[in-house]
Amino acid sequence: MKIITATLKEQLAQVKQRTAALTDPKIEQTVRAIIENVQQNGDEALRDYEQKFDQVKLDDFRVPQAQIDQAWEQIDADLKQALRVAKTNITSFHQQEIDNGFMDAARPGIIRGQKVIPLATVGLYVPGGTAAYPSSVLMSAIPAKIAGVKRLVMVTPPQKNGINPAVLAAAKLAGVDDVYQVGGAQAIAALAYGTESIPQVDKILGPGNIFVATAKKMVFGQVAIDMIAGPSEIGIIADESANPRQVAADLLSQAEHDKLARPILVTTSLELAKQVNQELEVQLATLPRQAIARASVENQGFIAVLPTVSDLFRLMNAIAPEHLEVQLPDPSQYLSEIQNAGSVFLGKNASEPLGDYVAGPNHILPTSGTARFSSPVGVYDFVKRTQFIQYRADALASEAKYVTKLARVEGLEGHARAIETREVAK
Amino acid sequence: MKIITATLKEQLAQVKQRTAALTDPKIEQTVRAIIENVQQNGDEALRDYEQKFDQVKLDDFRVPQAQIDQAWEQIDADLKQALRVAKTNITSFHQQEIDNGFMDAARPGIIRGQKVIPLATVGLYVPGGTAAYPSSVLMSAIPAKIAGVKRLVMVTPPQKNGINPAVLAAAKLAGVDDVYQVGGAQAIAALAYGTESIPQVDKILGPGNIFVATAKKMVFGQVAIDMIAGPSEIGIIADESANPRQVAADLLSQAEHDKLARPILVTTSLELAKQVNQELEVQLATLPRQAIARASVENQGFIAVLPTVSDLFRLMNAIAPEHLEVQLPDPSQYLSEIQNAGSVFLGKNASEPLGDYVAGPNHILPTSGTARFSSPVGVYDFVKRTQFIQYRADALASEAKYVTKLARVEGLEGHARAIETREVAK
Repeated sequence: MKIITATLKEQLAQVKQRTAALTDPKIEQTVRAIIENVQQNGDEALRDYEQKFDQVKLDDFRVPQAQIDQAWEQIDADLKQALRVAKTNITSFHQQEIDNGFMDAARPGIIRGQKVIPLATVGLYVPGGTAAYPSSVLMSAIPAKIAGVKRLVMVTPPQKNGINPAVLAAAKLAGVDDVYQVGGAQAIAALAYGTESIPQVDKILGPGNIFVATAKKMVFGQVAIDMIAGPSEIGIIADESANPRQVAADLLSQAEHDKLARPILVTTSLELAKQVNQELEVQLATLPRQAIARASVENQGFIAVLPTVSDLFRLMNAIAPEHLEVQLPDPSQYLSEIQNAGSVFLGKNASEPLGDYVAGPNHILPTSGTARFSSPVGVYDFVKRTQFIQYRADALASEAKYVTKLARVEGLEGHARAIETREVAK
Repeated sequence: MKIITATLKEQLAQVKQRTAALTDPKIEQTVRAIIENVQQNGDEALRDYEQKFDQVKLDDFRVPQAQIDQAWEQIDADLKQALRVAKTNITSFHQQEIDNGFMDAARPGIIRGQKVIPLATVGLYVPGGTAAYPSSVLMSAIPAKIAGVKRLVMVTPPQKNGINPAVLAAAKLAGVDDVYQVGGAQAIAALAYGTESIPQVDKILGPGNIFVATAKKMVFGQVAIDMIAGPSEIGIIADESANPRQVAADLLSQAEHDKLARPILVTTSLELAKQVNQELEVQLATLPRQAIARASVENQGFIAVLPTVSDLFRLMNAIAPEHLEVQLPDPSQYLSEIQNAGSVFLGKNASEPLGDYVAGPNHILPTSGTARFSSPVGVYDFVKRTQFIQYRADALASEAKYVTKLARVEGLEGHARAIETREVAK
């Protein structure tokens, strides 16, 4: 990877120039036609698109429960065990995200509160082919079920050789209620508006290609959506005490995802920077996904060398990486320095793939700098809140004059009069 | 309002047919040009648009602190007092929404946790003219400041007679850091990408016209945005014990907002329905905003009469109103029945305008049925979360085999090897 020794100021200026592109109007036009067709023609439109785009002719989109049960039986014992351990740890982490709202009866005659309510119906989009990851099914479905979502449906593009059994097994283990074989923009449209077969949902989550991402953005408002996912990123903060072999391996673990993945090392040690570059070459040589990882490392990755640990955190906060490893001695002392990162891995044993699979925190994380304003997927993504108030007459009597004053200042006489229909409020 | 006595099933079928429209491609084309111009030309583009759209020539967009201080001095003592009471109650309610994350050290050698971090910079859009409400400034700015947002900026279209002093006074009271005179799609673009004068923000909140709403949707992903606001709605659930004068007044308090506002009464009492209709006529006759309220009541509003209280809640949950009044005896016993509503008002003293101004819960609420999946504005809108893990070597040793198994099943050999660079993991 290229080694950059520019000043912090110069490097920060570079980071600021990154911006997200607006939706492509041509793709939007294509997607708009698909959405409108699905709105109007429902299942018939879905069947046409699946035949056209996925070359699969479907009578029934729903994957039979027997096939899902069989998939679980079919996977090997070690995989079952690994999925079960992952489920246990994901569950125990995410249960700590449960929010029970509050009831406030502190002031005389006044009840105020907030009720946290699970979304009724949620749709998970799972990409087809090699990007269909059983671990991602656990990461989205388990928090949804902890939140109390009643109906959790999964959609995934039909595959000529059938849906990956490991994905179906994970869906079963996580408690997904229904699986439908439908993909692309048409699947997003079906979830947003409902068809004869596919239920209308309250929220759609999950990554997909540019058509899926554009469709999600277009139906936003009709349903809730999660963030639009970009290529994976890993940022590693390290000093001379870090192990170059481990640092290189962790960088490659994200580089192997995608040619556009961004592996980034920021370090106070030029020596470490050079050693990591040597290790990358050694490890790339035998990596099965070498071509992808090499493109990522060479075209997207970089190593920044800066004088102080404080500089490392400042640069990394500007980058706002999806994954952040802190490979410094006694790393938890730096938690306070972290403003922007999706998920943080403290110290040499917390290799990033540990978080991808087993540790329990979510692995569906904000990418492309969106950690500035968004969060890992969590139980909070599957609930919404309702407030409530109840006033006794004496409580209304004491506050009514402030309501009528503000209403009249805002020119909303009807608001003031509504309060004044209560005898105590005059 | 028209009285509907169809069966619950028939009425539910009617509700299901409502869907949100996709963005208008022509408006999107106009907004795209504005966004790209602001991205490229910054303040210069803003100045051109403000001259063109608002007929105001500006050198400096920032409203001087002296003008904001003066606005506070200028408003009358009763208004100051009402704003202060509102601030106190909004603050005490929203402080209960603070989430401090968690630290979990339950398993040997493993630390897992979640850190809740305030967004660094947030932009509030405040519409111009009569829709510039000081109460709405409090409702968005106070939760942001409780969350810990460092820089809270407000944008509002320039007005020929200057910005409403009550709005500036509310901004000062709520702790807004900077106010800029810029509106429309250009203001959204400026907040999303930054210009020489306007800082780039992490999230944009606030209602606006169709150009503002379209611009917000288009920059989603570059920044976070709140929900796209639609016309106001009030749903009232009442039986024969309700006071028709109060029910009518509360319906009109929302009807006066907008010709497209939706006032809805669902009741078990045909007698109440008829009395409310008579009261509406009486009260409309002297309402200053009669023309608006009448259009809303006649064209958007309706009264549904259904046999049981349970039916009333089923229909109202399908409608998912922004505001929901429960005008039934002992109303808190029905909290469990409420699945979809922005804010709930229990009993006859909890007239909806009480919640608009003084009670403390937020008045920026999900509209157009989006209470199915979204929440009132709250402290949670101004924070994001970061997870972290730290593992001792023995903890990694006991879980490594599950990581490598899952990684290899997913075809990600680099992930497995990263774990295996740790001696204990082999």
